[in-house]
Amino acid sequence: MSDKKDERIFGQIPDTKVGQLFRDRMSLSTSGIHPPTQAGISGAASEGADSIVLSGGYEDDEDYGSEIIYTGAGGRDPNTGKQVSDQKLERSNLALAKSKIEGYPVRVTRSHTHNSPYSPQKGYQYSGLYFVDDYWRERGRSGYDVWRYRLLSFDEHPNVSTAGELPHGSDNTKRAKTTIQRIVRDTALAKNVKWWHKYRCQVCGLALETSAGLYAEAAHIKPLGRPHNGPDVESNIICLCPNHHVLFDNGGFTIADDLSLIGLDGKLRTLKKHTIGLEFIRYHREHY
Amino acid sequence: MSDKKDERIFGQIPDTKVGQLFRDRMSLSTSGIHPPTQAGISGAASEGADSIVLSGGYEDDEDYGSEIIYTGAGGRDPNTGKQVSDQKLERSNLALAKSKIEGYPVRVTRSHTHNSPYSPQKGYQYSGLYFVDDYWRERGRSGYDVWRYRLLSFDEHPNVSTAGELPHGSDNTKRAKTTIQRIVRDTALAKNVKWWHKYRCQVCGLALETSAGLYAEAAHIKPLGRPHNGPDVESNIICLCPNHHVLFDNGGFTIADDLSLIGLDGKLRTLKKHTIGLEFIRYHREHY
Repeated sequence: MSDKKDERIFGQIPDTKVGQLFRDRMSLSTSGIHPPTQAGISGAASEGADSIVLSGGYEDDEDYGSEIIYTGAGGRDPNTGKQVSDQKLERSNLALAKSKIEGYPVRVTRSHTHNSPYSPQKGYQYSGLYFVDDYWRERGRSGYDVWRYRLLSFDEHPNVSTAGELPHGSDNTKRAKTTIQRIVRDTALAKNVKWWHKYRCQVCGLALETSAGLYAEAAHIKPLGRPHNGPDVESNIICLCPNHHVLFDNGGFTIADDLSLIGLDGKLRTLKKHTIGLEFIRYHREHY
Repeated sequence: MSDKKDERIFGQIPDTKVGQLFRDRMSLSTSGIHPPTQAGISGAASEGADSIVLSGGYEDDEDYGSEIIYTGAGGRDPNTGKQVSDQKLERSNLALAKSKIEGYPVRVTRSHTHNSPYSPQKGYQYSGLYFVDDYWRERGRSGYDVWRYRLLSFDEHPNVSTAGELPHGSDNTKRAKTTIQRIVRDTALAKNVKWWHKYRCQVCGLALETSAGLYAEAAHIKPLGRPHNGPDVESNIICLCPNHHVLFDNGGFTIADDLSLIGLDGKLRTLKKHTIGLEFIRYHREHY
């Protein structure tokens, strides 16, 4: 497993497919789906986790198919496999938490040794992409603290609702339950912009400190997608805290040609290497 | 059409189904899918919009099936149907914007008069639930400003990506594009809590002012869904700005029994009628 930044691949690996079987960990590793040949989690704290293998090693794992409650790594006796101390939110556990706050997809593979109706009869089966919906600490069956993660299948959770609150179907209450989503598209270039600004909001300077690291959102100035068809280039992206992102996307403020803010006091914070496209700012100003 | 607050139904109407046909606007209205018998948008600025009918009245509408670019109401000559003045973000147009910031589902019905391959041959066909992904102003074909809305089908946009950035499928770049989601579940009770607090964050007192009205998020203290199975009751919900919601859900701060904040200065702002369940706060403190 290499930790070189440019080599970690998030998402689908070319020339592999969901449901594909692998004889052993070595062939799974060679495929690129899960590079490490022993560790259950592929990832680094600073980069996020890109893949996990469910192998039955943790007594606390729960597998519902498109929803998995996964247990973090560490704290086990290497000989007995028993939990003998608390797990910490560090290394690969922190990597999975980082994947949650960044929204990175995580490849999931099931081993035949994982006790679940979704496991293959032998070898390893790639189950597709999941995302980390939540992470938390709890007292495991062993009596020691473990870190746990809820992973949800991308394919089988249209608009996601773990609480069964998707607003169609059996809702017969007068005041419907609803599901809200704030979608933030985060591309490779958006990652660069957040990195350049050290996750500081270009409006207020704030970087949110979570237990999984700093958090910010990348906002496209001229939106992606039709009919706007803004480009995914760094000069069309700004780094914002969630509050200023909501305001920017919903008419709360806009930006003048000299980068002073309209609707808020102050001026957009900039960096020399991060040029903002005036044509994108003008588009936003005219439309939002 | 009644605007009485308790009578507006968001989401699926009991005893109706997607694909169902209606002879005319009256029978569509009687079904409850689209109560108004003339207006294209069912909604009120203060409550949000619950339903639209695509009838071909606006030359700027674009229909891609699971994605619709819809044009707001107003500014047309009632005799010729032509756009003769700018549309404003008010009344039903504002209602659709409110549905966006609140994440409310919008029922979509297509008329045979709507020029699209997805329209029925005659009468009206209910097409299911969509959500408002974006709203903006633009110069329409007529030369006057119109408000436009991107609506996406709930069923056909698993984890939503209007820019084709869903991180599985054909991605063969080394640094994958990813899609981030922050999901906020907003139930009827959560609506109450936001309303009680006038959309002010219980940590910082801020209420975000968007062009569609005030914005806040409802956070469940003990999360919904397994394995937490927190209840959807008002004493398990707090009203937060997006920044403090991210921090609360990701280990940025928690709350002591006396409601003082741990990890941040200050104390949770409370209201007499909004009791916070200590058992939920303890659960959050032990797990996040």
